[in-house]
Amino acid sequence: MPHTMLRCSECQIYHMPDMKTLGCESCGAPLDVEYIGDGGEQSGFRPPGWTGPNIPLPVHTSDAFVTLGEGGTPCVPLTNLSKSLGLTDLIAKLEFMNPTGSFKDRGTSIMMSVAREQGVREIVEDSSGNAGASVSAYAAKAGIKAHIFAPAAAPAAKLQQIKVYGAQTHAIEGSREDTARAAVDYCAERGLVYASHNLSPYFIEGTKTFAYELFQQFGDGIPGDIVMPVGNGSLFIGAWKGFSELRRADLLTSMPRLHAVQASAVMPLAAAYEGVEWKREPGSSTIAGGISVGDPPRLKQCLRVLQESGGVALAVDDDAIRDWHRRLAEVEGIYAEPTSAAAFAGLERLAAEGRFGKDGSVLVAVTGFGLKDAPPA
Amino acid sequence: MPHTMLRCSECQIYHMPDMKTLGCESCGAPLDVEYIGDGGEQSGFRPPGWTGPNIPLPVHTSDAFVTLGEGGTPCVPLTNLSKSLGLTDLIAKLEFMNPTGSFKDRGTSIMMSVAREQGVREIVEDSSGNAGASVSAYAAKAGIKAHIFAPAAAPAAKLQQIKVYGAQTHAIEGSREDTARAAVDYCAERGLVYASHNLSPYFIEGTKTFAYELFQQFGDGIPGDIVMPVGNGSLFIGAWKGFSELRRADLLTSMPRLHAVQASAVMPLAAAYEGVEWKREPGSSTIAGGISVGDPPRLKQCLRVLQESGGVALAVDDDAIRDWHRRLAEVEGIYAEPTSAAAFAGLERLAAEGRFGKDGSVLVAVTGFGLKDAPPA
Repeated sequence: MPHTMLRCSECQIYHMPDMKTLGCESCGAPLDVEYIGDGGEQSGFRPPGWTGPNIPLPVHTSDAFVTLGEGGTPCVPLTNLSKSLGLTDLIAKLEFMNPTGSFKDRGTSIMMSVAREQGVREIVEDSSGNAGASVSAYAAKAGIKAHIFAPAAAPAAKLQQIKVYGAQTHAIEGSREDTARAAVDYCAERGLVYASHNLSPYFIEGTKTFAYELFQQFGDGIPGDIVMPVGNGSLFIGAWKGFSELRRADLLTSMPRLHAVQASAVMPLAAAYEGVEWKREPGSSTIAGGISVGDPPRLKQCLRVLQESGGVALAVDDDAIRDWHRRLAEVEGIYAEPTSAAAFAGLERLAAEGRFGKDGSVLVAVTGFGLKDAPPA
Repeated sequence: MPHTMLRCSECQIYHMPDMKTLGCESCGAPLDVEYIGDGGEQSGFRPPGWTGPNIPLPVHTSDAFVTLGEGGTPCVPLTNLSKSLGLTDLIAKLEFMNPTGSFKDRGTSIMMSVAREQGVREIVEDSSGNAGASVSAYAAKAGIKAHIFAPAAAPAAKLQQIKVYGAQTHAIEGSREDTARAAVDYCAERGLVYASHNLSPYFIEGTKTFAYELFQQFGDGIPGDIVMPVGNGSLFIGAWKGFSELRRADLLTSMPRLHAVQASAVMPLAAAYEGVEWKREPGSSTIAGGISVGDPPRLKQCLRVLQESGGVALAVDDDAIRDWHRRLAEVEGIYAEPTSAAAFAGLERLAAEGRFGKDGSVLVAVTGFGLKDAPPA
């Protein structure tokens, strides 16, 4: 028996849990998983090896669980950088140390587990890279056929990685939005499940393990400020959901501030946060491909996380991203993809503006591996 | 006060612990770390977050410890493959989920920590790729200047990764051996420390954490057979050292068999194991770059591990490696580099020949990430 429902993130209407339901039947907004009754407590599923507090998850049995060893990423003190930025404690959570090289594996693991439980045999996903590779890998593990739609202009190493796991790739000319439309059309034509990492409520249930791991490592003393690159915001929203659950379980006495960093060329969230109009300049682009999302479907939810947590959204330009990409590797030995370097460019500005809490403890999510998307020298 | 000595792996003569001492002053053989007195127990150093049994390590203080969050790699059951190979339990330890994408980070972390303790400011290393990237990254973190000598023909992604962390790279035309000679000459000319991952006894002290992690995860029931790709053998020798320490501490009641897989084109260990003469054919090569080592300095030690553990050494051809590289990704969602795929080609043969123990539990080390060295399609 399912222990979850899907609830509209805006009008709060409930829907039955189904991989095919990706938007509210009433208002069209994205859905979230909500646990009913004893919910997660009663689901009986606990990820193998996990020794922290119970994590409510939409998976019922260990048999259905699709895992490649995601999560459990290390937190590394950035002692060289913290001094130069005037911070007491600067910590990086190395999310690129996931099985396919990005944080997406957290979300994909749970999304594909639910797909397997629901008997799904074939899925469609669209991605500019990291999510496509992740879904391709977990689909291989789960024995589910995957179609990945990707922009023809995505980085070669990312496209290569999507292919290597055996997904059928569909390279689409045009914008990121054209790719998404092609995927939706393909699903509609063939009656397939659209396993969208942006829309699927199950994906976010996986990313929330980020928060539980921080609690397991730091206990009630988690860093007061957390900085992330934000495109679609799945880690941003998922982490906040995790912290909120920990708070409700009386395990956290205070919540961290969550800060969102975007690229100047593609900054819908930073603009909405500042209350200014924003439209993407035709032909504008950024080297931070993972956050090059002009119209994120969960924008309102990201804004609520900023508001509830007291965080800031800001945008940084590609020169700063390039500079931080180099600096992070040369000063701290961390080879991040440009998307993750953007978070450090944002961090630098937030530190200079004195936006961090008085305890001075700041954590940055390093979301993707530089091997996947090295910027031009 | 140092709690270690260096001991010749062949004639057993002791040497004072020094980063510069890489071979026995009497017979020239490689050295190993030996703990004196209470040794590791008294050193007072315990890697942060480690909750398993005490690991004797040549590092004295946490301040000296250079870490990027290496180790703690997951063990993933390969349920799809185990059936087709007729094995009860097949497990992969995903060593590519290390900070620079290979198992080398275990060894580099400890080697660079000792370098920092000993006040070393500038080092030289030679590598065909993974070790070079690893040393470059940890040198950046430690604030030590690194020179990495690499064959000019090494994979582009690996050379790029070495550069990104800021090491000064020296691309050397010719064979892998020419690269090593150039590094040695450069050290001699400038009086620099040769931080060789093949020769440094401290590197192996880091790789032995592989064994301790298996004990932490499986307790006394670690898999009876472990298969690895072996070039210089640092993981092979290090893992055996770790298991031996655990056995001496009465934590393990039986030792696993360690099996070594090489490429047919470069198979000094497999040939020595079979007792046949072997010389590299001029111009011969393999796509498994990480094990393309014609004259490994620790060959005798590798042979002893085979003999003591009851393991087998064998060689596989590039077609089998290519096939397993694809199969591993498509069937299990694991994107390994060709060197790691070689271990699975070896595993297949060992399984077919009935070489594994009766409990049928086999573990394979997946040593490097496919993103670093994708084979030509």
